[in-house]
Amino acid sequence: MLAAVIAAPGDIRVEERPDPVLLGPRDAIVRVVAACVCGSDLWPYRGVTPTRAPHPIGHELVGVVTAAGEAVTQVAVGDLVISPFSLADGTCQACRAGMPAACEHVVFFGARDADGHPTDGAQGELARIPFADSSLVAVPGPVDDALIPSLLTLADVMSTGHHAAVSGRVGPGDVVAVVGDGAVGLCAVLAASRLGAARVIAFSRHPDRQELAREFGATDVIAERGEEGVAALRALLGGDRADVALECVGTRESMAQALAAVRGGGRVGYVGVPNGGPELPVRTLFDGNIAVAGGMAPARVYIPELLPDVLSGAIDPGRVFDLELPLAEAAEAYRAMDERRAIKVLLRP
Amino acid sequence: MLAAVIAAPGDIRVEERPDPVLLGPRDAIVRVVAACVCGSDLWPYRGVTPTRAPHPIGHELVGVVTAAGEAVTQVAVGDLVISPFSLADGTCQACRAGMPAACEHVVFFGARDADGHPTDGAQGELARIPFADSSLVAVPGPVDDALIPSLLTLADVMSTGHHAAVSGRVGPGDVVAVVGDGAVGLCAVLAASRLGAARVIAFSRHPDRQELAREFGATDVIAERGEEGVAALRALLGGDRADVALECVGTRESMAQALAAVRGGGRVGYVGVPNGGPELPVRTLFDGNIAVAGGMAPARVYIPELLPDVLSGAIDPGRVFDLELPLAEAAEAYRAMDERRAIKVLLRP
Repeated sequence: MLAAVIAAPGDIRVEERPDPVLLGPRDAIVRVVAACVCGSDLWPYRGVTPTRAPHPIGHELVGVVTAAGEAVTQVAVGDLVISPFSLADGTCQACRAGMPAACEHVVFFGARDADGHPTDGAQGELARIPFADSSLVAVPGPVDDALIPSLLTLADVMSTGHHAAVSGRVGPGDVVAVVGDGAVGLCAVLAASRLGAARVIAFSRHPDRQELAREFGATDVIAERGEEGVAALRALLGGDRADVALECVGTRESMAQALAAVRGGGRVGYVGVPNGGPELPVRTLFDGNIAVAGGMAPARVYIPELLPDVLSGAIDPGRVFDLELPLAEAAEAYRAMDERRAIKVLLRP
Repeated sequence: MLAAVIAAPGDIRVEERPDPVLLGPRDAIVRVVAACVCGSDLWPYRGVTPTRAPHPIGHELVGVVTAAGEAVTQVAVGDLVISPFSLADGTCQACRAGMPAACEHVVFFGARDADGHPTDGAQGELARIPFADSSLVAVPGPVDDALIPSLLTLADVMSTGHHAAVSGRVGPGDVVAVVGDGAVGLCAVLAASRLGAARVIAFSRHPDRQELAREFGATDVIAERGEEGVAALRALLGGDRADVALECVGTRESMAQALAAVRGGGRVGYVGVPNGGPELPVRTLFDGNIAVAGGMAPARVYIPELLPDVLSGAIDPGRVFDLELPLAEAAEAYRAMDERRAIKVLLRP
């Protein structure tokens, strides 16, 4: 099969690799219908995180099951499935408690599974999925091909934006500020709006992203950031601050902005991977009684929750894809996102 | 009037001071029926926080209103009232949102009020209460004197223990670990039990506190602390961790213990004042999807919520007082708590 491999920072290759086979009774093999490039894929691409040896890459896919191990009962050959970006055993305490993102035996695409076998990336023609039953979600068919992009967002960015909103306990009537206008931040706008926020304020400086934020339900857009952004937010709210801020970047500056954007007793839901810190300023949190919650999204829990709204067309998160390329052009997909020519790129094997 | 003053670390004096008078239309004057010494009063007593000049001390009281400004409508002369440990304006965004502990114009006992006037401490015969309407809560009478200790805990420690539990979103069926066996930690045990926790595990090394924890609803007591404490907790839970940990101390070690005590997707409610840090380890929180919330308790919100259970005898948090002294012996009250001869000391003017 063909699959994308990162050989070194800036070096994405689409190579011929062995077709995956079932290695255990809980595995499934999926033929990828659509994959995509994530903002977090840009970290090794940019050398922010190291690439010690070439390895397959990508962690978001929609596909069709072509083989299933004998212990697999929840999905069957022929099913159209969505895979969460992390694979969970379904049996550890975190999984039982509904937080598979913190599974004690979590398996990431492209890394080793719980038995020590290497796994595939999602940016390929085929992928072996360990823990298939507790990871894959079947989509009831038939499915219009036009829905594929939105279904694909449930694998990661829409579930992650939703996790920011759920972690920030967004509810009806809330005033919500969203820090970050990448695909996740835009999905957080959509999620907050879907959960009934009265006002969703998107921080964004890019006209195309501002426009999509508004289409996703942002009632206001602020181009300033940092302290100026918070001042603009307070001016918008008559001196008040937001009830909830959704942090969708992961830098010191974005977290500081989120914390400064909420009122006393407010909440910050965060999903930006904290790339080496910063630590959270506990005295600021204590004095402001600000709750902070978040982490990797339990996409396996959210996919069934969000799926009906995607299938009905109530939400259309697939609009974050503003470029589609064949898998063979994965290198160009990375370049387009790295150079901010695209918000998010869909890849078709 | 007589009132306790801290002159320097270790130096508590009961002195004659001017009787307070109404200074503004929103003030009330309260004759103190009972006050007490808080764990946080030991900080200046021990020199952990500086005492730049002698000042009145104490921030917990039950009393009777003896005068009320013309704008005061919610309490009247003759009312038995409980004062929260911090006074709030009732009008800022945080107050309107139900979080008066983060009031933009918060007034602390013994400090200056919003108009710049000095305020009294609670450990005295009388106290002027600014923001009376949005601070004081009247207790419907007649009230049995035996209830005074429990009513007094609503001013701070019981509301604070409850805040830990509310911040940790303790609910029916939860397994809850409580770090800290001071009066607040013990009240957190009581609060978690009251909110329906299936199992409440108290960390405590002191036999008298262990016993009170059990009477307050602790199902298990662990004498070990730190990593050993967490290992003991996991042994108790068959390898699992708690759903929620309540951090009631405020040190680096206690927060680390609380974070290590909860499962993936768990919650930490914290009310231990973070005395100079440490900052929260964001990567630990992110990887474990652990929510952290807390701060100073919005006692003004909790007093009416908890009051019926105190009046009915459903809860008896006043049992945290294991020593009662006349106000004149305030210095001995501090010594008894400093030397851990008492959990908490009640003072009667």
